Amino acid sequence: MKNYVIGIDVGGTNIVTALSDLKGNVIIKTKIPTEAYKGYKDTIRRIKEQIEYVINEVGLSVDNIAGIGIGVPGLIDVEKGICYFSGNLGNEWQDVNIREDLNKFFNVPIFLDNDVNVAALGEKYFGAAKDCKDFIYITIGTGIGSAIISDGRMIRGHRFCAGEFGHLTVDKNGPKCSCGNVGCIEAIASAPAIARRIKEKINSGRKSLMVEIAGGVDNITAKTLSEAYDKGDELAIEIMKETGEWLGIAIAGYINIINPELFIIGGGVSRAQERLLKYIREEVNKRAMKIQKESCKIITAHLLDEAGMMGAIAAILEYLNLI
Amino acid sequence: MKNYVIGIDVGGTNIVTALSDLKGNVIIKTKIPTEAYKGYKDTIRRIKEQIEYVINEVGLSVDNIAGIGIGVPGLIDVEKGICYFSGNLGNEWQDVNIREDLNKFFNVPIFLDNDVNVAALGEKYFGAAKDCKDFIYITIGTGIGSAIISDGRMIRGHRFCAGEFGHLTVDKNGPKCSCGNVGCIEAIASAPAIARRIKEKINSGRKSLMVEIAGGVDNITAKTLSEAYDKGDELAIEIMKETGEWLGIAIAGYINIINPELFIIGGGVSRAQERLLKYIREEVNKRAMKIQKESCKIITAHLLDEAGMMGAIAAILEYLNLI
Repeated sequence: MKNYVIGIDVGGTNIVTALSDLKGNVIIKTKIPTEAYKGYKDTIRRIKEQIEYVINEVGLSVDNIAGIGIGVPGLIDVEKGICYFSGNLGNEWQDVNIREDLNKFFNVPIFLDNDVNVAALGEKYFGAAKDCKDFIYITIGTGIGSAIISDGRMIRGHRFCAGEFGHLTVDKNGPKCSCGNVGCIEAIASAPAIARRIKEKINSGRKSLMVEIAGGVDNITAKTLSEAYDKGDELAIEIMKETGEWLGIAIAGYINIINPELFIIGGGVSRAQERLLKYIREEVNKRAMKIQKESCKIITAHLLDEAGMMGAIAAILEYLNLI
Repeated sequence: MKNYVIGIDVGGTNIVTALSDLKGNVIIKTKIPTEAYKGYKDTIRRIKEQIEYVINEVGLSVDNIAGIGIGVPGLIDVEKGICYFSGNLGNEWQDVNIREDLNKFFNVPIFLDNDVNVAALGEKYFGAAKDCKDFIYITIGTGIGSAIISDGRMIRGHRFCAGEFGHLTVDKNGPKCSCGNVGCIEAIASAPAIARRIKEKINSGRKSLMVEIAGGVDNITAKTLSEAYDKGDELAIEIMKETGEWLGIAIAGYINIINPELFIIGGGVSRAQERLLKYIREEVNKRAMKIQKESCKIITAHLLDEAGMMGAIAAILEYLNLI
């Protein structure tokens, strides 16, 4: 009986491989370093080994596996199973047919999608968006990405690139973004952008507990912010408020355009929880249209560290119509 | 045989009623003033008369009508056939079940949707977006609205409010918008906003041919702009460029988020054609992401004056799966 699926979260740092039943209960999982520098072929080989390991370890065989779901940080053609590009995994992950390469070892259905879409599916089936047909999931970490579920379906776009919310311009003449544009919300409110803004203020003479907390200006990260905020640090409060305002401007626009029932914020920065969300909500309340804002709850993600793994499981279960 | 459909464009100024065959060929049409001030019931009565007129005039009967499609400038529940609100048509159009009220006279399928969605369907089946599964249609006139077709389906949103692109904030501290927010693209680039910006410049001392062309500052409209632009008027060029830049900022964000194949610009302001589009394209080219901009053409709408009527015909044909 094919009563199990495999979910694989290929992250920039680690690869998590999980064996799950058809309800999303994880039976066993492994975590290995991604070490993408070893190259694409080597990574595929190690993924293969992890799959074999989780199957064998609980006394199953490939015959028990209904399918394999994979989340990859890159531009994925979900129809062909190809990764066209991955900034995180390096040049060797350009135009590689991951599905085909894994199908050589495992003759089962394989579905891959980009990490943000997969995380959104995780929230849809196992997290914050259960029974919700219209929602937006954004992730704020090293970058800012998003996925749109409309009427129960993922909006993928003409070339599978939909959801690039991080590159919405919110400040015409704002800071330079990695994408080449200026004033993208990612260049203001991603984790590195928040850290950069804090450091700029401190280097221009502002005092802050954050220097002490982090053990030096250069060690300040977005995580430092919440701790200093809780201690009433003036600069931390100012940066948290500004970050929430800019995010609120962008999110209000996004809500106006998509009219979701739920707006889920995941990724590392979402760990600031209500400290940040209250400013986001205030700004959205000022800027979004009446029905749009009244009918949309803004919340943080439920899955966080498990988003990729549970999302990959959700993705294959949805692909196989088993969920 | 039910070989015909009716398409009705209920506009703020006129109501157009058309009889069409199942291929979208219009056999006969009428145009009457909307005169919404006469009230909802009276308008429904006059719409009923127009439907009867176009059917009878060519010797048909209701038995020949497969269905009626209607575009209404308001918030429409497409499932229930209710208009919840219409800024253009007035208070009496709040929470009215148009489908039910017209079904009392005509026992045929009736489908209504808001005017912008309907215009997008017109472009999909009879205009600029034939064979296109992923496109955005925006209309720039008195206001700025939009519709998103993704993978062939209209994105309606949780409460039928999706597509409110006009209320994307592009300038945090920009001009006040009718929606209550500030710095919405509609408050900068709609026809009245363009006229306001021209007048502000002239009233602050700038010289421009537009005063002469329009016969006084107060008569200047967005239409004056193109004429003065063609004559090399410096202020007209400046305003056209600025308008294109602001629209480009907003459109780049929209394209990044939705990744459409086609971006269609309709509404009165789109009559500026390449005069405006070249500045929009320049800005989108600066700001949108690589694949998103390379795979998306930005063009003007094909239907313009007929968008509402052809859209209503397209809407009912699509609803009946006849197209």
